[in-house]
Amino acid sequence: MKLATLRLSEGRTVAVRVDGDTAVETGHADVGELLRAGGLEAAASADGPRHDLAGADLASVVPAPGKIVCVGLNYRNHILEMGRELPEYPTLFTKFPEALIGPRDEIQIPPESDKIDWEGELAVVIGKTVRRASAEEAEAAIAGYAVLNDVTMRDWQYRSPQWFQGKAWENSTPFGPVLATAEEIPADAQMVTRLDGEELQRTPIDDLVFNAVDLVRYISTIFTLNPGDVIATGTPGGVGHARKPARYISAGQTLTTTIDGIGELVNVAVAEQVDAVAAAGEAARA
Amino acid sequence: MKLATLRLSEGRTVAVRVDGDTAVETGHADVGELLRAGGLEAAASADGPRHDLAGADLASVVPAPGKIVCVGLNYRNHILEMGRELPEYPTLFTKFPEALIGPRDEIQIPPESDKIDWEGELAVVIGKTVRRASAEEAEAAIAGYAVLNDVTMRDWQYRSPQWFQGKAWENSTPFGPVLATAEEIPADAQMVTRLDGEELQRTPIDDLVFNAVDLVRYISTIFTLNPGDVIATGTPGGVGHARKPARYISAGQTLTTTIDGIGELVNVAVAEQVDAVAAAGEAARA
Repeated sequence: MKLATLRLSEGRTVAVRVDGDTAVETGHADVGELLRAGGLEAAASADGPRHDLAGADLASVVPAPGKIVCVGLNYRNHILEMGRELPEYPTLFTKFPEALIGPRDEIQIPPESDKIDWEGELAVVIGKTVRRASAEEAEAAIAGYAVLNDVTMRDWQYRSPQWFQGKAWENSTPFGPVLATAEEIPADAQMVTRLDGEELQRTPIDDLVFNAVDLVRYISTIFTLNPGDVIATGTPGGVGHARKPARYISAGQTLTTTIDGIGELVNVAVAEQVDAVAAAGEAARA
Repeated sequence: MKLATLRLSEGRTVAVRVDGDTAVETGHADVGELLRAGGLEAAASADGPRHDLAGADLASVVPAPGKIVCVGLNYRNHILEMGRELPEYPTLFTKFPEALIGPRDEIQIPPESDKIDWEGELAVVIGKTVRRASAEEAEAAIAGYAVLNDVTMRDWQYRSPQWFQGKAWENSTPFGPVLATAEEIPADAQMVTRLDGEELQRTPIDDLVFNAVDLVRYISTIFTLNPGDVIATGTPGGVGHARKPARYISAGQTLTTTIDGIGELVNVAVAEQVDAVAAAGEAARA
């Protein structure tokens, strides 16, 4: 089963089940609300107004997660090829929902950064409340998977020892296009990131050091995970900042992030239009 | 003016204005809702049911902030005494609301950590929506101030390069007792942290490298700040982990955090009661 959040007119959104080319409303305002209402199983048979998926305006699949936990340094091949040891524990940081955009939305390139990089990732969406989950509880708590690109302002990421400020820019993180339940995703699924069609990252998604169940167990040791919460599981090698010479995303370029069985994010980067007075103020204190 | 959030029976909370020994209901469910409803000015003259403050059960002053942004390495004296240079940019990380507890609640000491440390902090509570705030806008966007103790699991903080997992433990971060507007706080206000009455941190709160206005400007460059959002401005010297020998909080000890003009957090640390099966599972994978 695949679920998505559609934007209708006047700022209204609806959760839909994706049946081929058709989107069928489930009766919830978005996929996050559907999960919080315990509606994942019922969504399989839900029936409501239908929309043509081709012309649909897709929102971030969960528009307002209560928590977005991101994982760093989590692809085995990439860590080993860098000559590093595999980590004993996951590296965790966060985003806030303000960062999220829909799967076809524009990535806002703020005037304050000129080192904007891609990080294609598999995202785990939580469907049940868990704390200190066992392996069985963790697996049962996963509603499904989505694609997320943890677009990162590298200059801000490395301004201080903590990465958060490079990871949280408003309207920078595409997330979707759908929540796909586990059976939709082939065992050999690959994730691919492209910029203007050029392939820059490719990995099998089963190469994670800490897989989805490991991460739900580990993170839920620290605090409760709730329906709609999101875990972004980390990015493989091939990011722009590590290339020689380094490469970054420019306004006008199209970032494409694909995972087999889930779907594709297609996001054009645009120069953010900032109030001139505010921008001058920022420049003065930069 | 001072505002607080009171717990009534059956899980209900109310926002109150604190008039001496009396708490006067403002008509909002909590201080966060009051701020989101734009009710800060109106709260000064609000009239409603009254409660005796002495017997009141205080909740976290903003129980569910949309965002909690924490600042590291921000007290000038402490940085200079450590022989470090003053930072050019703030160091930012986050907590989720699950970490927060009320000003008289018990701090939960999880079985997974034995290096639990204090970090007394001045917290800024946002009252207006701002993005890329000017200095004037930033000042106007601050609803007031509260006390927060960023209780930290040092062993988990240093498991990975990112501190978040040591900062986000459920029911560990006391926050309150009130939101005090700026005129309540004397110019020479001090913050003091005590453990079982022994003074362990003391600082004038005006010794911040990045003050409240600086932080609202900096953080709102990255994303929108909304009413009820919280900025924890960092801790001075005197934490337990940096002492020789290192000291940590044990179950049964009382942590007291005070800022002149705002008030006092008094929190007893208790060993968290964890379901035996869940605890065994965690021990097995630790």
